[in-house]
Amino acid sequence: MIFLFLVFETNPFNFSLKLCLRGLVAEKEASVEGITVKKEVDFSEWYNQVVLKAELADYAPVRGFMTIRPRGYAIWQAIQDYFNQVIKSKGVRNVYFPLLIPESFFKKESEHAEGFAPELAWIERKEGDEERVAIRPTSETIMYDAFAKWIRSWRDLPFRINQWCNILRWEVKQTKLFLRTREFLWQEGHCVYETEGECVKEALMFLGEYKRLAEELLAIPVFDGEKTELERFAGGKATFTLEALMPDGKALQMGTSHNLGQNFAKSFGLKFLSRNEKEQFAWQNSWGFSTRLIGAVVMVHSDNKGLVLPPRIAEHKAVVVPIIFEKNREKVLRKAKELATQLKEVNAFVDDRDAYSAGWKFNEWELKGIPLRVEFGPKDLEKKQAVLVRRDTGKKTIVKWSSLKKEVKKQLEEMQENLFKKAEKFLKESTVEVSRWNEFKRAVSEKKLVFAPFCEKTGCEEEIKRETTATSRCIPFNQKEAKLECVKCGSAASRKSYFAKSY
Amino acid sequence: MIFLFLVFETNPFNFSLKLCLRGLVAEKEASVEGITVKKEVDFSEWYNQVVLKAELADYAPVRGFMTIRPRGYAIWQAIQDYFNQVIKSKGVRNVYFPLLIPESFFKKESEHAEGFAPELAWIERKEGDEERVAIRPTSETIMYDAFAKWIRSWRDLPFRINQWCNILRWEVKQTKLFLRTREFLWQEGHCVYETEGECVKEALMFLGEYKRLAEELLAIPVFDGEKTELERFAGGKATFTLEALMPDGKALQMGTSHNLGQNFAKSFGLKFLSRNEKEQFAWQNSWGFSTRLIGAVVMVHSDNKGLVLPPRIAEHKAVVVPIIFEKNREKVLRKAKELATQLKEVNAFVDDRDAYSAGWKFNEWELKGIPLRVEFGPKDLEKKQAVLVRRDTGKKTIVKWSSLKKEVKKQLEEMQENLFKKAEKFLKESTVEVSRWNEFKRAVSEKKLVFAPFCEKTGCEEEIKRETTATSRCIPFNQKEAKLECVKCGSAASRKSYFAKSY
Repeated sequence: MIFLFLVFETNPFNFSLKLCLRGLVAEKEASVEGITVKKEVDFSEWYNQVVLKAELADYAPVRGFMTIRPRGYAIWQAIQDYFNQVIKSKGVRNVYFPLLIPESFFKKESEHAEGFAPELAWIERKEGDEERVAIRPTSETIMYDAFAKWIRSWRDLPFRINQWCNILRWEVKQTKLFLRTREFLWQEGHCVYETEGECVKEALMFLGEYKRLAEELLAIPVFDGEKTELERFAGGKATFTLEALMPDGKALQMGTSHNLGQNFAKSFGLKFLSRNEKEQFAWQNSWGFSTRLIGAVVMVHSDNKGLVLPPRIAEHKAVVVPIIFEKNREKVLRKAKELATQLKEVNAFVDDRDAYSAGWKFNEWELKGIPLRVEFGPKDLEKKQAVLVRRDTGKKTIVKWSSLKKEVKKQLEEMQENLFKKAEKFLKESTVEVSRWNEFKRAVSEKKLVFAPFCEKTGCEEEIKRETTATSRCIPFNQKEAKLECVKCGSAASRKSYFAKSY
Repeated sequence: MIFLFLVFETNPFNFSLKLCLRGLVAEKEASVEGITVKKEVDFSEWYNQVVLKAELADYAPVRGFMTIRPRGYAIWQAIQDYFNQVIKSKGVRNVYFPLLIPESFFKKESEHAEGFAPELAWIERKEGDEERVAIRPTSETIMYDAFAKWIRSWRDLPFRINQWCNILRWEVKQTKLFLRTREFLWQEGHCVYETEGECVKEALMFLGEYKRLAEELLAIPVFDGEKTELERFAGGKATFTLEALMPDGKALQMGTSHNLGQNFAKSFGLKFLSRNEKEQFAWQNSWGFSTRLIGAVVMVHSDNKGLVLPPRIAEHKAVVVPIIFEKNREKVLRKAKELATQLKEVNAFVDDRDAYSAGWKFNEWELKGIPLRVEFGPKDLEKKQAVLVRRDTGKKTIVKWSSLKKEVKKQLEEMQENLFKKAEKFLKESTVEVSRWNEFKRAVSEKKLVFAPFCEKTGCEEEIKRETTATSRCIPFNQKEAKLECVKCGSAASRKSYFAKSY
């Protein structure tokens, strides 16, 4: 009997030559395939392949819908766990409001109604049911109708709730898993305050928490600021946004918070008895992020071998792959399990499946984005060591058993930091500040994030969009006062804006 | 200045005489009202009042829908946290499938299609969209279509997934918060196996986990067994169920698991390559419980003062209520906060609101179901003690600061156990075994849970239902073989069944 053991280090993500150990693996191994296009060559197809082959999501039978598979949902759960802790510490409580919203509610706030009208999915009327109802595209209207009932006095304020739910917006032309689907999952926070000052302050505070989530959990650097009138939430007074730059030069909105002012309060009769015993309309904000974040993580960090996940959101942060030969088989397996137990804190597991070769497993877990691989064979058993391989750099480190746990934790932290730094470097290198229109156009065509003085007029922004397809992503907060000329129309401008194409 | 401090111990849940400390509280206190009907007099109205006044849920503007408020959702989260741990340990992974299901999918399994047809909410067709789609009433069909794509070989089995989501079933005539609503939240587990043996074994294992959840977390004793053909899941081969008896003598289904056999596998082409290299249809089970459980908790444990929650699902298991007089005000408040900090483990908080009297707070937290109240006034400050008051028994215990934490934890455990024992005693006392039809009818009219020999024929069960409105709730597992006569039709019966009216 001959046992083969080969690993193709140079091109492991497209591993077509399969190895048969003990003759068991032919059928399954033949069906596994790595990513077949390069990120730098066909970004869109590369993204689809990573999402599908890492088994994060799949297309659903109804056009525009997606199924979030266990590996994708685990990322969402990591984000939920993190953010539930955050909002709990801010006095926000989770709730669940109905899926269906009456037609009359949409009409109460006219801008809101107009903004969402094309996106609504209506339910076929049943006999005896009077009013037409639609699936929620967001929950402002149905929530604020209830708030008006529940909130009576300044003693009930601030009032802060959050909802994790599914959302439906029909107007999606071309499906892109996680990024453009008719249904998606999100959280929507909705708060009510006595004063506008408090309302704006907390809208910005929640945006700040989104920034921490993006940077510290997802390892994605962001830039933030205010949306222009054109990009503002329908019915809101101001929209604050967090944006990230994707490797293809398009910006992706990572979360928004809205100062709704008293607009909805007036439409829904949300009044309270103030401290000086007068009835007054409440101030409101709302804030949300969605499963789009998973798409951003994939785009920013992954590579031509497949998914790369920041360790903090990886369900299993390490996999122990035993390298098995008949000789010492049991001993290697036993010790591999021991090592995984030592690494319980990072949710490590042993891939002890008989039906697959070690080389096949290396490829599979690279494709599926396990941050650290622990290789462990007979030689390692002898030398009381293991070999760590980092997913982001491919760097190998030989580690003694005694320092394995410490080294694994250290490398996971380094990987988290490295992913952020790489993305930050890309963002910096991709950002160009310009003041003239021809520079602006060149920068957009070179897929840069453009920073330029802007008059903030809707007509001018539409003109820019028409000529370049780029839009204002956000106008940074706290800019120094300056007398500027709009990059497009030359009229007076007091602030600069980030521009890019966007998802 | 005169400070009043009175507590009406005898009838605190209907506390109409309000006290004004420092003249601040008149407006708000006037609006608080306890439960105005007795559980033993008008059970249905009593239930509605507890749910609404403890702020667990509210009616939504669309008929048949509910809003789950923060106090209600916190119970659901406690159940989710518990059950997510359980299923994780069983190798089940969470996913999210689309809300909308194509019409053709419902038609693939004919019994299933027929069973759910009247309950579907269809989406109005948009231009250019071909197939009619409906909101999920359950997800078997859409999931199994995907499973057929994902599962290829015995190596992919067992395959176990779970989904937490919203569900819509239109055919609800009269809304009952948590118990009968068109939309509800639930979990649905769906597993695929190589053999029927494994499939049935795990269906029963998940039912066993539901039983533990009901008894150990919710403190609700249950009885379990198999459903008759009449009550079986549409499209399934066998349904296993968990039932609890409510104080009004009606049974409530607490969770079910279904052996789907190969029915759906055949309809959806869910085949796999077996160990002996043959294609074969897979075996499947599914299992679920819903936000109904919250309704069961309310009905079983609550009393005429309001909500009573088993400590294990109470978000805040204790509240410290300082009893404030001007003298020593700061000292009492400071120490009250210290005591709450000591009780962080049980998520205690201090109710230090100035605008409400201590008496008002006692009533509020009794109404809203905080398991333990810690009263703390100037006399207690002097004596280095606090007064514990248990929500279920009203029993007061004076405790020294040094043993407060230990005593609180002990009393919470005792309360959890006491609630279960009380409910268990009720279940035992309400169960009647009969063998004759006139005894059966009398027992049903006396709101008993009836245990009787049953022929298991659909015609006979329908007859029983017509005459008494009671149905077979379940046929217990592992009954001793016996030659019996059906309590209704007198024909041969081999097993006994539980009968009751049901929710």
